[in-house]
Amino acid sequence: MDAEHKFGVRKLEILDKSKGFIELLQQLTICDSVSDKEFEERFQEINSYGDDHLICVIEDDRSGKIIATGSVFIEKKFLRNCGKVGHIEDVVVDSAARGMQLGKKIIEFLTDHAHSMGCYKVILDCSLENKAFYEKCGYKQKEVQMVKYFI
Amino acid sequence: MDAEHKFGVRKLEILDKSKGFIELLQQLTICDSVSDKEFEERFQEINSYGDDHLICVIEDDRSGKIIATGSVFIEKKFLRNCGKVGHIEDVVVDSAARGMQLGKKIIEFLTDHAHSMGCYKVILDCSLENKAFYEKCGYKQKEVQMVKYFI
Repeated sequence: MDAEHKFGVRKLEILDKSKGFIELLQQLTICDSVSDKEFEERFQEINSYGDDHLICVIEDDRSGKIIATGSVFIEKKFLRNCGKVGHIEDVVVDSAARGMQLGKKIIEFLTDHAHSMGCYKVILDCSLENKAFYEKCGYKQKEVQMVKYFI
Repeated sequence: MDAEHKFGVRKLEILDKSKGFIELLQQLTICDSVSDKEFEERFQEINSYGDDHLICVIEDDRSGKIIATGSVFIEKKFLRNCGKVGHIEDVVVDSAARGMQLGKKIIEFLTDHAHSMGCYKVILDCSLENKAFYEKCGYKQKEVQMVKYFI
């Protein structure tokens, strides 16, 4: 791909399912195919949170494919004087589109969104191998993530 | 305190502000005093998410004080076949009420809630010193938490 090409970040749209959005998520983790109905229902559920749950994408307008995505949702707390925290999740860049700072663009977009929503911090969990990338985005390691799987 | 006493876990109620809920959060992190109006507004905001954002408490019915709390919110995703993930936050037990497994009760309550909501996993972030506690609750370390503060 051409590194000089301008890639803009925008909000996920319902038509992005037909542009490879689900296939992109499959590069991140288990994500079987989703029917149009399931996609639309989940899209509307997330959309109903308005600016409190934002999924963004980068579309390659030459191929018409979604080549990067990430999400952030805004958690409302009582502590920190009824503060808010942004949680970044599900960041992935198409393996064929690496090295063009698209991941950094996605993180900056999501971080700016959390900031504009009045969050006092943004957090995310990542593997040790991705830590250096997030440090370049201005993030610092703090705690450890614990998980319990039900399936 | 009497370890034989039965402590039930219940959902946060608006009257819990007068039972030391904010003072309890102050044992966890920065949490200046919150006005009744601010508390009610935030309570209603969180309440509007229904079962997707649950804050639970343990009240000591002898002292009338809230002595433990924790929260979980349900994130809706596209991956994992439109899966859901529970995020546990803001778990704290009153320093005068430690050693009675109240933290474990809170975690079990929040974990069960996430399970009943159809989540495929529950995650939380903790300090290394609290890792052993969460392992006793059935959690395993997975990733590292990265953070960016705005203030």
